[in-house]
Amino acid sequence: MAENKNQDLKNLGEFGLIDHLTKDIEIKNDSTITGVGDDAAVLDYNNKQTVVTTDLLLQGIHFDLVYTPLKHLGYKAVVVNISDIYAMNATPKQIIVSIGISSRMSLEAVDQLYDGIKLACEKYNIDLVGGDTTTSLTGLTISITAIGEANKDDIVYRNGAKPNDLICITGDLGAAYMGLQLLEREKRVHDKNNAVQPDLSGYDYILERQLKPEARKDIIEFLKEIDVKPTSMIDLSDGLSSDIMQICKNSKTGCRIYENKIPIDHATSLMAEELNMNPTVAALNGGEDFELLFTISLQDYEKFSKETELKIYTIGHITEESKGKYLVTNGDQEIELQAQGWNNE
Amino acid sequence: MAENKNQDLKNLGEFGLIDHLTKDIEIKNDSTITGVGDDAAVLDYNNKQTVVTTDLLLQGIHFDLVYTPLKHLGYKAVVVNISDIYAMNATPKQIIVSIGISSRMSLEAVDQLYDGIKLACEKYNIDLVGGDTTTSLTGLTISITAIGEANKDDIVYRNGAKPNDLICITGDLGAAYMGLQLLEREKRVHDKNNAVQPDLSGYDYILERQLKPEARKDIIEFLKEIDVKPTSMIDLSDGLSSDIMQICKNSKTGCRIYENKIPIDHATSLMAEELNMNPTVAALNGGEDFELLFTISLQDYEKFSKETELKIYTIGHITEESKGKYLVTNGDQEIELQAQGWNNE
Repeated sequence: MAENKNQDLKNLGEFGLIDHLTKDIEIKNDSTITGVGDDAAVLDYNNKQTVVTTDLLLQGIHFDLVYTPLKHLGYKAVVVNISDIYAMNATPKQIIVSIGISSRMSLEAVDQLYDGIKLACEKYNIDLVGGDTTTSLTGLTISITAIGEANKDDIVYRNGAKPNDLICITGDLGAAYMGLQLLEREKRVHDKNNAVQPDLSGYDYILERQLKPEARKDIIEFLKEIDVKPTSMIDLSDGLSSDIMQICKNSKTGCRIYENKIPIDHATSLMAEELNMNPTVAALNGGEDFELLFTISLQDYEKFSKETELKIYTIGHITEESKGKYLVTNGDQEIELQAQGWNNE
Repeated sequence: MAENKNQDLKNLGEFGLIDHLTKDIEIKNDSTITGVGDDAAVLDYNNKQTVVTTDLLLQGIHFDLVYTPLKHLGYKAVVVNISDIYAMNATPKQIIVSIGISSRMSLEAVDQLYDGIKLACEKYNIDLVGGDTTTSLTGLTISITAIGEANKDDIVYRNGAKPNDLICITGDLGAAYMGLQLLEREKRVHDKNNAVQPDLSGYDYILERQLKPEARKDIIEFLKEIDVKPTSMIDLSDGLSSDIMQICKNSKTGCRIYENKIPIDHATSLMAEELNMNPTVAALNGGEDFELLFTISLQDYEKFSKETELKIYTIGHITEESKGKYLVTNGDQEIELQAQGWNNE
C-alpha cells in the first residue's frame, strides 16, 4: 500500500476511513449477528451470559509513541481488554474500537495500529464489530470494549475466595515493568545524544513482555480441561500487590504470600540488577504482566498434578480478614501489603 | 459535599475515585447480573439479542468546557450513545463509562460530570456497569459503550429501505447546530471583552437542544404501540444529508427529500436569520439533533393516523438507486445530496 503512504486522512473523511479500516473484517463467531456499519452491533447470546469490559489508553499516560511500534500498540490494546474477559473465566468474542487520531498521524500509521488490532483478533478469534473514529486535538486515544460469553455457572468473580484457599499465579511477574524501565532508559540516552542508537539486543524477553503481551487464553482452557473452577480470579494489570488486595477486599479475607514463591524470570532479575532495583518490587508494583491471579480450594489442588507445559505457581494462601494482608519476605519478615506496594511510601 | 471541593483527586487514587463515583449506583435491569467492581460486568440476555454501540468524546473536538456545564456534558454523553441503541429499535439497558481526567480537574468537577451521567441513567432506566478511570495529560476524554436488547425480529438495520418507502423524521432539525453557533458567538464576544456577560435569554430552546439533547425513547415505544416496524432507521447525529445517504448506501437505493417538508423550529429560523444563515443548511449538515430518521412501507402509513403528541413528519420517499439522492428545494430545484452537505463544497 505504498501509494497510500502520504495520503491525507482528511481526504478520506470519517466514513471513508471507517470503510478503509474495516473492509477486510470477516465475522468469526456465531454470536456476532452484524458487526461494523450500523448504529450498533447486534449480538446473540441465548443461553449464555455476556461479559463486558473496557479500557481507555491515552498517549503519554499508557504508551509512548517514541518507542512503541503502532502495530504492537494495537495488539496490546486488544490484549489488555480481553485479559479482563479471561479473568472472568469467560471467552472474548467481540471488540468495539474507538480511536481519536491526531491530525499529524498518516493513514499508514493508522493502518499499522489496525494491523495490530486485527492480528490480535485473528489470534484470539474475536470479531471487531464497531467503534467510533474521531479527530483528536492532542495525542492518540484508544478506547476498546470487549464482550465475552460464559455459561452462567462458569463465571468467576473476585469475591469468592475463602480462608485456606491457595493463591496461584501463572507465568512470571515484573518483566513488563523491567522492559518499560529499559525503554525509558534508552529514550533518555537517545534524547541526550541523537547519534546513539539504542542497543536492545539480549533484552528480547522483557521487551516483548512490555510491548507485545499475551492474554492467558491457554490457562482458561486448561482450567476447563482439569475441571477446576477458581474461587476467585483477577488479571495482573496493576501489580500483584494491588491485585491480590482487590481479591481480598471483594472476598472479605486476608492473605499471606511468600516472596520466595513469586516467579520471576532470569531476564527480569538481570535487568533489575543492572538498574540496581529489587525484582520483587517490580513483581508487586510493576503491573502490566497480564498473567492470571486466582484462588482454588484445597481439594482442587491435586487436579493440578496433570501434566502441562503451562507455568502455574502457588504463592500463598487466603486467610481470615482479621489476619490482614501480608508478604512474607525471603528474610522471614512480614510486611503489610499496600495498594501502591509495600515499599512505595 | 462542600468539604470535598478542594480535595485532590490524587489523594483519592484510581480505586478510591471509582468507589466514590459508583458507590450509590443501584441496578435497575434484570439483565444486569453484576456491574461495577470486577474485571468485567456480567449480563444475561437469554432469548434476546444484544445491541452494542460506543462513542468517544474529546475535549476541544466534541465539547468546549468554556460553555458546557459538566453535568450537561455527562448527560449528553449518555444520550448520544443510547440514541444509537434506539436507532436499532432496541432498548438500552447498560452503559460502560471510561474517562480520562486532566489533572487540573477537581473532584467536584468529576462529580458534576457523573451527576449528569447518573441522571441520564435514571431517566432512561439504564445501569452503569463498569468502566475505566485514568489520568489524562491533555483534556477530558469520555468514552461510553451502551448495550441494549431487542427481540431478534424487532431489530431495524440501515439496509432495509425499499423504493416507494416513505422517509420520516421526528422532532425538528438544525436547532442543536444553531445553539452551538450562538455559544461560539458569545464565547468570541467574551474572549474580546471579559466584562461582557453573555446574554442567552430567549434562546432556551436551541441551547437546550445543543447542551441537553434527549434520545427518542418515546418514538420507539410509539412504533411498538402502533405495530410499525420501520424498514430502516438511523439517528440524526451527522445531519440529515449524511444520515439519509447512509440509509441509501446500505439499502442500495436513492431518495428524494423535500426542503419544504423538513421540520425546523421557529427559534432555529430566528437564530439563522440573526446569523444570516440558511436554516435548511443547519438541518442538512448541522447534526447532533439525535432525532430518528426512518423509512416505512406505504401500507404502514395509515397506522400513523393514531392520535399522538409526538411529532413525526414525512419528508420524502425512497427511490431506485439509479435515480440518485436529491433534495427538492423550495424553488423546485433538484440538488444532489452530499455527505458533507449539498452546499458545502
